[in-house]
Amino acid sequence: MLSKKEIKDIQSLSHKKARSETGLFVAEGPKIVSELIQIAPKQIQTIYAIEQWVAENKTVAATVLSDIELERISQLQTTNQVVAVVKQFESKEPNAGESFCLYLDTIQDPGNLGTIIRIADWFGIKDIVCSSDCVDLYNSKVVQATMASIARVNVYYDEEGIWLSKQQAPVYAATLGGNSIYEINKLTNGVLMIGNESKGLSDRTLAFATERITIPKKGAAESLNAAVATGIILSHLI
Amino acid sequence: MLSKKEIKDIQSLSHKKARSETGLFVAEGPKIVSELIQIAPKQIQTIYAIEQWVAENKTVAATVLSDIELERISQLQTTNQVVAVVKQFESKEPNAGESFCLYLDTIQDPGNLGTIIRIADWFGIKDIVCSSDCVDLYNSKVVQATMASIARVNVYYDEEGIWLSKQQAPVYAATLGGNSIYEINKLTNGVLMIGNESKGLSDRTLAFATERITIPKKGAAESLNAAVATGIILSHLI
Repeated sequence: MLSKKEIKDIQSLSHKKARSETGLFVAEGPKIVSELIQIAPKQIQTIYAIEQWVAENKTVAATVLSDIELERISQLQTTNQVVAVVKQFESKEPNAGESFCLYLDTIQDPGNLGTIIRIADWFGIKDIVCSSDCVDLYNSKVVQATMASIARVNVYYDEEGIWLSKQQAPVYAATLGGNSIYEINKLTNGVLMIGNESKGLSDRTLAFATERITIPKKGAAESLNAAVATGIILSHLI
Repeated sequence: MLSKKEIKDIQSLSHKKARSETGLFVAEGPKIVSELIQIAPKQIQTIYAIEQWVAENKTVAATVLSDIELERISQLQTTNQVVAVVKQFESKEPNAGESFCLYLDTIQDPGNLGTIIRIADWFGIKDIVCSSDCVDLYNSKVVQATMASIARVNVYYDEEGIWLSKQQAPVYAATLGGNSIYEINKLTNGVLMIGNESKGLSDRTLAFATERITIPKKGAAESLNAAVATGIILSHLI
């Protein structure tokens, strides 16, 4: 049984302000929670779960809740067995001269950011830099879409907007009308910049590009989803 | 001013049953509606819009509504200027021997289906076959995610489940543990099968595969989103 204060504290983590103040976030559902337990056990602060989940995960310390109690602290439309309160990961400033980095310019859809983190993790990309106006990494929809890749990829927010200006490595801008990605050699370092879902890369960001690259279009669609474009480009460049 | 009956009729199009009975669906927002007016004007039955949209689209016949009235007939969380009631497109059974087709097995997330249609349109793929348990093409979230590509790609539902058994062309199954997509020659005909978001391709569907193909993984993520995987594979095969 949870106290009113506990419920309120967990619910408050749906707001960025409370997440920043406490350094915590919420992850939900058996799949992502099980994976976080495996790969980042020290990050997990508390697990709340219904009896069924607890019975299936006997080695894990968890607070047993009723369905109704779990629903109260869940941020999902459909509550799914388990809610974990997790410590935010340490974020380090990456160097594009040492490894290949993604730079995300104003990615505002949480599903897109989460999916891009999962894609980066698939292709072995360790570092993502987000412009300060990207959606918050610990937004619950971002967390869910990462499918636990959030624990494996370093995401750094460029709060001062100066990260790009410090890089010496090549900077590739995903745009319309650039060089075909089918004709670029594989890369081991540098930056791939991905722009906002509807506006693309801002002029300010584009100014840092050393090469503009494009996924050649054979049909008529006006554009590709930002996450899909990221996946396609990485599959050709990495 | 709309009558109660009109409002009810339009609202009912959020249900598949009413869409099937009337042969209509709803598309919303300036971007998709403008594109549908351009590429499929004959499909559009009625346009409802606020004054601002009507003033900016003087050549288009539209019923002017107040913000509140438009909200009432909108299926989006945030109503966006214009709602169009559109006739469903004719659907033809494709032949994978003549052109390259996508086969979607139990794709249930509307955003994924819509995004896959948009990706197909980008790569010039004209035909998609859906297993009968895929989400409905005219679900409003599917329609919105296609970004008007719904008017350019033929989507055929394999209601009897026999389409695959009739194809003579090669059938590629996107799975884990197949041949690398980086080593497959470009294709002009055949089928690419994409499986359900969490369960992948069913055994029944996999039995029709002539070759299993995989996006090689360099990192640790367990899987890729179905739409992202479709985009990556098509960028290498087409």
